[in-house]
Amino acid sequence: MKQVSYRLADLAARFGGRVLGNADTTVSQVSTLDSAQAGHLTFLASGKYRAQLAATRAGAIIVGVADADATQIPRIVCDNPYAYFAKVSAFLNPVPQAVPGIHPSAVIGDGAQLDPSAHIAAYVVIGAGASIGAGSVIMEGCSIGAGVTIGVNARLYPRVVVYHDCVLGNRLIAHSGVVIGADGFGIAMDEGRWLKIPQIGRVVIGDDVEIGANTTIDRGALDDTVIEDGVKLDNQIQVAHNVRIGAHTAIAGCVGIAGSTTIGRYCRIGGSAGILGHLQIADYVEISSFTLIGKSIREPGSYTGIYPFSKNDEWRKNASHLRHLDALADKIKLLQQEIEALRRKD
Amino acid sequence: MKQVSYRLADLAARFGGRVLGNADTTVSQVSTLDSAQAGHLTFLASGKYRAQLAATRAGAIIVGVADADATQIPRIVCDNPYAYFAKVSAFLNPVPQAVPGIHPSAVIGDGAQLDPSAHIAAYVVIGAGASIGAGSVIMEGCSIGAGVTIGVNARLYPRVVVYHDCVLGNRLIAHSGVVIGADGFGIAMDEGRWLKIPQIGRVVIGDDVEIGANTTIDRGALDDTVIEDGVKLDNQIQVAHNVRIGAHTAIAGCVGIAGSTTIGRYCRIGGSAGILGHLQIADYVEISSFTLIGKSIREPGSYTGIYPFSKNDEWRKNASHLRHLDALADKIKLLQQEIEALRRKD
Amino acid sequence: MKQVSYRLADLAARFGGRVLGNADTTVSQVSTLDSAQAGHLTFLASGKYRAQLAATRAGAIIVGVADADATQIPRIVCDNPYAYFAKVSAFLNPVPQAVPGIHPSAVIGDGAQLDPSAHIAAYVVIGAGASIGAGSVIMEGCSIGAGVTIGVNARLYPRVVVYHDCVLGNRLIAHSGVVIGADGFGIAMDEGRWLKIPQIGRVVIGDDVEIGANTTIDRGALDDTVIEDGVKLDNQIQVAHNVRIGAHTAIAGCVGIAGSTTIGRYCRIGGSAGILGHLQIADYVEISSFTLIGKSIREPGSYTGIYPFSKNDEWRKNASHLRHLDALADKIKLLQQEIEALRRKD
Repeated sequence: MKQVSYRLADLAARFGGRVLGNADTTVSQVSTLDSAQAGHLTFLASGKYRAQLAATRAGAIIVGVADADATQIPRIVCDNPYAYFAKVSAFLNPVPQAVPGIHPSAVIGDGAQLDPSAHIAAYVVIGAGASIGAGSVIMEGCSIGAGVTIGVNARLYPRVVVYHDCVLGNRLIAHSGVVIGADGFGIAMDEGRWLKIPQIGRVVIGDDVEIGANTTIDRGALDDTVIEDGVKLDNQIQVAHNVRIGAHTAIAGCVGIAGSTTIGRYCRIGGSAGILGHLQIADYVEISSFTLIGKSIREPGSYTGIYPFSKNDEWRKNASHLRHLDALADKIKLLQQEIEALRRKD
Repeated sequence: MKQVSYRLADLAARFGGRVLGNADTTVSQVSTLDSAQAGHLTFLASGKYRAQLAATRAGAIIVGVADADATQIPRIVCDNPYAYFAKVSAFLNPVPQAVPGIHPSAVIGDGAQLDPSAHIAAYVVIGAGASIGAGSVIMEGCSIGAGVTIGVNARLYPRVVVYHDCVLGNRLIAHSGVVIGADGFGIAMDEGRWLKIPQIGRVVIGDDVEIGANTTIDRGALDDTVIEDGVKLDNQIQVAHNVRIGAHTAIAGCVGIAGSTTIGRYCRIGGSAGILGHLQIADYVEISSFTLIGKSIREPGSYTGIYPFSKNDEWRKNASHLRHLDALADKIKLLQQEIEALRRKD
Repeated sequence: MKQVSYRLADLAARFGGRVLGNADTTVSQVSTLDSAQAGHLTFLASGKYRAQLAATRAGAIIVGVADADATQIPRIVCDNPYAYFAKVSAFLNPVPQAVPGIHPSAVIGDGAQLDPSAHIAAYVVIGAGASIGAGSVIMEGCSIGAGVTIGVNARLYPRVVVYHDCVLGNRLIAHSGVVIGADGFGIAMDEGRWLKIPQIGRVVIGDDVEIGANTTIDRGALDDTVIEDGVKLDNQIQVAHNVRIGAHTAIAGCVGIAGSTTIGRYCRIGGSAGILGHLQIADYVEISSFTLIGKSIREPGSYTGIYPFSKNDEWRKNASHLRHLDALADKIKLLQQEIEALRRKD
């Protein structure tokens, strides 16, 4: 991909910030402090990388106000260097536009409404009555069920599957292997056999949502599973039936969320965490990686439950007491009583 | 989908139970207590939802014997309301029948035997000598390896992959992204390099099994991996080579089961749990979510090993002692001895 | 598949080792101690299976030097029976050769370079400028992005997706559902909304790598994500952007590795383990299943952090103290002081 060059002055005119040093310095790509070359724009988003400033060969750098004078490299000073970098990078690396049209191999169901500006790639199958909005890109091998609605400027990477009747918002990004709307895990025991409970709800996804590779979002049992606007899901997340994820919540990879749990807005959930079913998680809650949330969280804040690792031998020695903690606590109570008795005797 | 209406009297005639209130009340769909409208049949499966009874606008309700008089809504009284609801819902929401036939784009290998009543969708690839039973539905983009056998009335959702020679039972439901029969993780270290151990076993799956989206079941190294009748697997489960899962066991999402472990019948395993390899788990064992089972379980019962979460600061303060629990226990022993010594002096 | 028979003498001539008993004994397949029949070669890789020796009906067996006389069955004595077995099994069960050619349904982009000896199956889509090496097999429904390079004798099972510009080494095995090069999880908060950070790095994979079903490896944010030679990844592993995995490291199923972490060579990581981002893991580190690594590991060795499971009631009783461990430790300190005071009074 040929990269266009821009002057720092141009970037500041477009994205704000103040240029220090030569404003005619041109950059054509973003890069890390370590890898940057002349012609690259790098960034300092956190003080802990300040030591790398001296060695960088970047042509220019984005820094926060506090670091305005931490380097002599031509620089853009702004309030939020990481967000500024995100904007410049998106500007320098635009997503390829959809080429309008339907590949002749695509199988399109009766009554499907495909905007003429949408791109439908090879071996896509679209069910009856589905609708795809303007500028959306459905890449090869995707399967879009009957009655599905997809908004404008969505991008489904190869081999995404959307089951029937789900509703996907504008600008959705769904990476390969995503499965939206498969049956939730609803079973009832009846005389020694499991009966399947039909899953007749849908998945409803808001605008500006991104879903990572091989993530699964199950359809609701009766009511819908809901992903609100601006939610960002990493890879291999499992969202069970009737979960609701509040707007602008971000969830890292491998998290599992059990059925009918409601997660608030602006939450941040670390990788491989788990949340049991039928819980309420407030807005602005942070959950650490590898933490199981087993009851509702009513207050914002950071929550953790991780067993600390150590060398295997030490772990074994220490962990062996966990099966006797209650006895240990009893023993301490007893010691207290004995000391009390001794004291009284004195 | 047009919904047909039924009288409560019709449902009771078909599924049993006793009607209280107007038996001519008609319902066309099932719903939750919260969302139900006139024409909807809801259910009360657990006492903890009894408070919602007063507010429901459902046309009718399924209740247990203990709740026969807890409401005046027209109702069906039965022993197991949740199972009753499952049966009525399946009756009101029948799975679409297979439309017999093979899409012209399907690629069918030599000697494959496809029952004429089976449905083979677009872009399906079926290997040589495979066999698909009556009424089975193989949806778009599935890949069925050479020599695979699939029973009757199975349903493979889009983009399921089954490797060669696996055997899948009657009425199997496999959701999108399922991979059955990929190579198990068999490697042997030899002079600084891993050698691959050919995985020459199969996956053999019984009748009435359901497998959730993106779940993987590896083929056996030498003998087979076996999933018995009636097993229900949720999404994103990993079943390693030579595992055996006993009949009617239900496993929630994101569970990992390591190689050569045998799980009994009627077990229930919570989400994101793990089971190490070469273990034996008895029948009727319940394993909590997020619990690692590191040795065999010989007795039925509920087993748990979860680190409790708390506010991050409190967790940090408390967890710091876990690396010194052994020293703490030693200290307590010493205190006991010192108290004993003081006592003797008295 | 018809199996060819070999004499033990032939195998020893090819793979080394010493034959004891009748060297003309022929075998055509490998098997477990339990399942082996006449004509089968089994192996004893660990002393703990020695008790099964008496009952095996195997025609021949591979044993270590220490077990040379533990049985009278015709046998091959060698230094590493498990590796020996791997070699013989690979010899008896060769991977089917690629049938050169491109299925007429494959969609090939402009300028793609496909070696004439490669096999491109039905419904494969290959992007512009991609290159596939000699003897490689791309099975049905794979999606190979523009500019991707794949080495020689690679095997991509059905429905693998490789995003644009990734580089895959020689003899790569990628199982179904693998997604290589999807966008890493890079987002920046800006005035209440997440901005997407373009992921402009690649995934670069060395030679002799195997990747299990539904594993995902994200492309780098700016620099590349790197998997070195000989790495073996099991199913459903999540490798985040800018991770580097050192040569010959083996990782079991369901592991999650967060962004920018570097793992050394010859590490072994157990199932469902997790490694936080921006960490350094030394060579020859072993990490137990279900363990979260939250800080860098500088020394080789085995590391563990698992909460031990027990019967649910006992767990509850014991775990309740974990939220008060700090108070418990304080109490013990106080007891010490009180005992000290009593002692001084004496």
